[in-house]
Amino acid sequence: MFFASDNAGPVHASVIRALEAANTGYVPGYGNDALTHDVQARIRALFDAPDAVVHFVATGTAANSLALATLVQPWQTVFCTAMAHIQEDECNAPVAFMGGATLRLVDDVQAKLDPAALRAAIAAQGTRGIHGAQPGAVQITQLTEKGTLYTLDEIKAVTDVAHVAGLPVHMDGARFTNALVALGCSPAEMTWKAGIDVVSFGGTKNGLMGVEAVVIFDPARGQEFEYRRKRGAHLFSKHRYLAAQFGAFLDDDLWLDMARSANATTAHLAAGFAAAGHAPAYPVEGNIIFIALPRALHRKLMAAGAVYSLTHGPLGDGPDDELLEARFVCDWSLPIAQVDAFLAHL
Amino acid sequence: MFFASDNAGPVHASVIRALEAANTGYVPGYGNDALTHDVQARIRALFDAPDAVVHFVATGTAANSLALATLVQPWQTVFCTAMAHIQEDECNAPVAFMGGATLRLVDDVQAKLDPAALRAAIAAQGTRGIHGAQPGAVQITQLTEKGTLYTLDEIKAVTDVAHVAGLPVHMDGARFTNALVALGCSPAEMTWKAGIDVVSFGGTKNGLMGVEAVVIFDPARGQEFEYRRKRGAHLFSKHRYLAAQFGAFLDDDLWLDMARSANATTAHLAAGFAAAGHAPAYPVEGNIIFIALPRALHRKLMAAGAVYSLTHGPLGDGPDDELLEARFVCDWSLPIAQVDAFLAHL
Amino acid sequence: MFFASDNAGPVHASVIRALEAANTGYVPGYGNDALTHDVQARIRALFDAPDAVVHFVATGTAANSLALATLVQPWQTVFCTAMAHIQEDECNAPVAFMGGATLRLVDDVQAKLDPAALRAAIAAQGTRGIHGAQPGAVQITQLTEKGTLYTLDEIKAVTDVAHVAGLPVHMDGARFTNALVALGCSPAEMTWKAGIDVVSFGGTKNGLMGVEAVVIFDPARGQEFEYRRKRGAHLFSKHRYLAAQFGAFLDDDLWLDMARSANATTAHLAAGFAAAGHAPAYPVEGNIIFIALPRALHRKLMAAGAVYSLTHGPLGDGPDDELLEARFVCDWSLPIAQVDAFLAHL
Amino acid sequence: MFFASDNAGPVHASVIRALEAANTGYVPGYGNDALTHDVQARIRALFDAPDAVVHFVATGTAANSLALATLVQPWQTVFCTAMAHIQEDECNAPVAFMGGATLRLVDDVQAKLDPAALRAAIAAQGTRGIHGAQPGAVQITQLTEKGTLYTLDEIKAVTDVAHVAGLPVHMDGARFTNALVALGCSPAEMTWKAGIDVVSFGGTKNGLMGVEAVVIFDPARGQEFEYRRKRGAHLFSKHRYLAAQFGAFLDDDLWLDMARSANATTAHLAAGFAAAGHAPAYPVEGNIIFIALPRALHRKLMAAGAVYSLTHGPLGDGPDDELLEARFVCDWSLPIAQVDAFLAHL
Repeated sequence: MFFASDNAGPVHASVIRALEAANTGYVPGYGNDALTHDVQARIRALFDAPDAVVHFVATGTAANSLALATLVQPWQTVFCTAMAHIQEDECNAPVAFMGGATLRLVDDVQAKLDPAALRAAIAAQGTRGIHGAQPGAVQITQLTEKGTLYTLDEIKAVTDVAHVAGLPVHMDGARFTNALVALGCSPAEMTWKAGIDVVSFGGTKNGLMGVEAVVIFDPARGQEFEYRRKRGAHLFSKHRYLAAQFGAFLDDDLWLDMARSANATTAHLAAGFAAAGHAPAYPVEGNIIFIALPRALHRKLMAAGAVYSLTHGPLGDGPDDELLEARFVCDWSLPIAQVDAFLAHL
Repeated sequence: MFFASDNAGPVHASVIRALEAANTGYVPGYGNDALTHDVQARIRALFDAPDAVVHFVATGTAANSLALATLVQPWQTVFCTAMAHIQEDECNAPVAFMGGATLRLVDDVQAKLDPAALRAAIAAQGTRGIHGAQPGAVQITQLTEKGTLYTLDEIKAVTDVAHVAGLPVHMDGARFTNALVALGCSPAEMTWKAGIDVVSFGGTKNGLMGVEAVVIFDPARGQEFEYRRKRGAHLFSKHRYLAAQFGAFLDDDLWLDMARSANATTAHLAAGFAAAGHAPAYPVEGNIIFIALPRALHRKLMAAGAVYSLTHGPLGDGPDDELLEARFVCDWSLPIAQVDAFLAHL
Repeated sequence: MFFASDNAGPVHASVIRALEAANTGYVPGYGNDALTHDVQARIRALFDAPDAVVHFVATGTAANSLALATLVQPWQTVFCTAMAHIQEDECNAPVAFMGGATLRLVDDVQAKLDPAALRAAIAAQGTRGIHGAQPGAVQITQLTEKGTLYTLDEIKAVTDVAHVAGLPVHMDGARFTNALVALGCSPAEMTWKAGIDVVSFGGTKNGLMGVEAVVIFDPARGQEFEYRRKRGAHLFSKHRYLAAQFGAFLDDDLWLDMARSANATTAHLAAGFAAAGHAPAYPVEGNIIFIALPRALHRKLMAAGAVYSLTHGPLGDGPDDELLEARFVCDWSLPIAQVDAFLAHL
Repeated sequence: MFFASDNAGPVHASVIRALEAANTGYVPGYGNDALTHDVQARIRALFDAPDAVVHFVATGTAANSLALATLVQPWQTVFCTAMAHIQEDECNAPVAFMGGATLRLVDDVQAKLDPAALRAAIAAQGTRGIHGAQPGAVQITQLTEKGTLYTLDEIKAVTDVAHVAGLPVHMDGARFTNALVALGCSPAEMTWKAGIDVVSFGGTKNGLMGVEAVVIFDPARGQEFEYRRKRGAHLFSKHRYLAAQFGAFLDDDLWLDMARSANATTAHLAAGFAAAGHAPAYPVEGNIIFIALPRALHRKLMAAGAVYSLTHGPLGDGPDDELLEARFVCDWSLPIAQVDAFLAHL
């Protein structure tokens, strides 16, 4: 009954096998090996983006921070939501990698950046002349940090506002595949066809040990990424072990299957909550549920062995019926039986 | 009829005379001259803080940025209001000088940081563990950017919350003296006795060419400031010309007289607005007024030669009766007759 | 006949098996799992340093950059040799992580920092007052970038000079184990007992996929490292896969065996060069040989399939007998038969 | 008998008068005033560079740091001499402003960057691929830190090497005018006609309080400079007081007269040394002399009231006849009688 995160379960067994298969002979380091080149080519094909530049890094924060750093200057600012991972969960890393560029928080609708608020924020920023940080880029997260999903039209609405203002758009796709299978569209449709300029295509939260692919649709930005990655100490010498993982991820639709599994388990959990009369705080559209439950129920669930986290800190000693928001995340490997076991305690 | 800023008028004539007086013979550079030492000692005495460290820089942004940099680490965050000068008007400079530490915006009451909101913000920040930026410092502006004034109790309420959380507090005193004469208290009362750890004591907006004194009450922080100032390219070789200005500022209560003049002129202007039926957006407590006036009236005033700025950009072509907020600032040198001439157009 | 690097061969099979063994069930992320704690404890025991703080990162550049960042301030400078990896091969990463602290190059003796030159460099730096970067730390590499080995006395001579000046010392141990088995001493003897304050204990160049352990002997510095690692985007969520590799490394003296193998192969190669009348540029004391060979011989060796790199760029079209320096590195997995095959072409 | 620095004497009286003249009425801030525009235009005319962008800052370190920051990226490196002011005397400021770009030291000939050594250094840097800092820019100082003078051909030789490699060249002209009058050429000839891309045209060391003009010959780089200046906290609100000083500087050839005076006084001093049998360490070509004198003579001179500094620290207690190098600098205001008084003690 582990719902605390999608980074705590095992990786798929085929990932281990792929590492083993890659573990033979001498190959050039630093991404110059044939396996890396092959997996990069597969990703370009997958995105229907033959000119895109694809690079691997080992953490989602590195993917986001390096991607943004190629898009903005130190005197600029990135527009994102208040719950953006880059704002809340990366301990200033994006700001560090951007050389001191800052983040501007824009109102959201169910964790999705509101296009009208974005337009107003960009305009307001423009009234301060040299004194204010200059508009630099726009950032969205798909699946959002609250588990909601941008439709393709919603992505387009954001990127249109950005592009009218001359700003590129980065997508934090830590849960890219969870969103993709929920929308049932192609990677191209969810990214460059909807106006996304750079995407962090996450593997770590969907069954890999620690690999993210940064896909840069404008190849002119690619060289800078490489210098920044090396300077950020994120260039792996033994690159084949990153590529091998991502190769296994793409083989036989494993990535899609794992995300479908996580989403389905989550939907089952959400249905169970609903049947028990508990409504989620946000629409459940991927593999995350935010939901308020009474303290007494939390106590019972945790005592039964359920592992998950509360939004605002420890359970504490308040009234039994006080509602406390919690986050439930299902990873690819979570057995549906575990969900049923959990729901039995509701 | 110049109300656009308090950095656009002339400096006091005695400032020029002081520069002339200081302009003789050879003296050691970089702040090691007798005049600099003397003015530093006068400031320590003025603040009743014999152990304080006092350093001069030439811009308010430098004073704020360097002061904050001595208080926080790159993985931390500074709590301030959404209209804080460090957030809105310094083009990411504080973030740059802090090595990538960020700002967290806290709700305000009439541009003053709300202690309860601050407490909640610090607590919320503490729930993210290693993933969130760590609480680093608190920052307030006195006189605020909207022209309101913290009472001594209000300062204390903020610094109490900060200190309970182990955070130091910086005061942006770009308009320190305007606030001081409004409160009628001593520099010590408005700073360290109210819990302020470091203050930017501004001269530039109150009649100097470009000098701010950073007063650091804990001398242990002083050496770091010096290294950071040099590394920030803000160490003047010919320091005597900074010290001379500040010396003239303090002579014969000139600083207090200039601030009183600015505040009085502003009060006269505010009274005129009130008499004409226009209410300010914030209490007028120093030398700044924010006030919404109909477009037609703006047009008339500007045509008559009044110079001031609108909050949200140019006047534009909208309806005559649409209310547009404007900012009026009076500097020390503004003749009351100018205000009367302006009011005649209301 | 692959001599280009020790980051191009396979990892030991037991590393793959350890990943597989670790790949079961849910465990807390970010280094809070039992396996990580266990391997950290083993490393502390290995170093006879019960209070040391041990953290894992995935690249050597990250280990060095983060370690140094905890030791120096942005206005300081780190003393190292001109061939230091942090100077030559990390694309400004250490400077970036240190927030702009710089490197000062000190004369070496066979790639080892010269204590007398270090003393002079520190003293010279101290004559510039506030204008020069302040002395911050000292850095050495063991095994050195040229394949030479500090004796314990030589390490002590450097750290003594540093400590007299109040400076901590970092050891880049990318090839820590190659040096350790060459000296035949304990990890404690080669580090804290010889005055080292922080060491990057490398696994990647000695048979792991990408893991380095940073060992910080003063626990007071440990918390900062964690914040800096997260902020540097180097905190892995699925930490167990780093720990598992390092655990396998330490099991049954695998780390020592792999390093001994690499050193022995290298010694065999060096003997072959000597027998053929070619003298190395530096004493061969670990797993690296720098040696000048005639262009014609290079041409022949490369044609035969030997892979290695020249110090000063491509082979080019110069005279056959021009001596061109090359670097030969043997990794743990290189079969001695490959060396013999190579030597047959000499 | 003050020879310690050219930043310790008074400013020219006409500078004070210019400040007084500028001190009337309200003018727009931040460089948008008529006086600033006028002086900028005069500088463009002076350099015969109608498209150049000219900006004022208050310190030489700011001028250099901001100029370089517009020329390089954080993963690049700037080639300069080991005695460059940016390397020795700016406490890491250039590195900070460049976002972590580093400096590479190139051999000099009498403190002038050696073109052949530069070519070799650029080539060597290019052999490390992604691992080494990338070549970014070249920097020279005219007059050099040792008082020597690049001829126009020597400047051209350096900029040719740089431009062939695609690198822009910055000139630190803290003593620009001392060099200019020594060469007897025009500002255009000493800068863009000789291949200089950006120059720090110094006023502070030649009779101003604290003003440097950065002249950027490619206007495309100008906007970035403005953002960086603001973000560096170096944008003065009351810009007229910078412009007024520089205006006075240019009036009636005051700048040239002051530099000629400083150079002439220095030549007189050098002649006196020569007559007494003391040879300078470097050719004396501007207003700086480095010269080794016996300790006993230093003791006598200092006892007589001469103020100057030794290269390697305090006088100490060594042998009377030990030669200790000292630096003598003459500023614009130093009376020739002072030099004669000093020489009488030789």
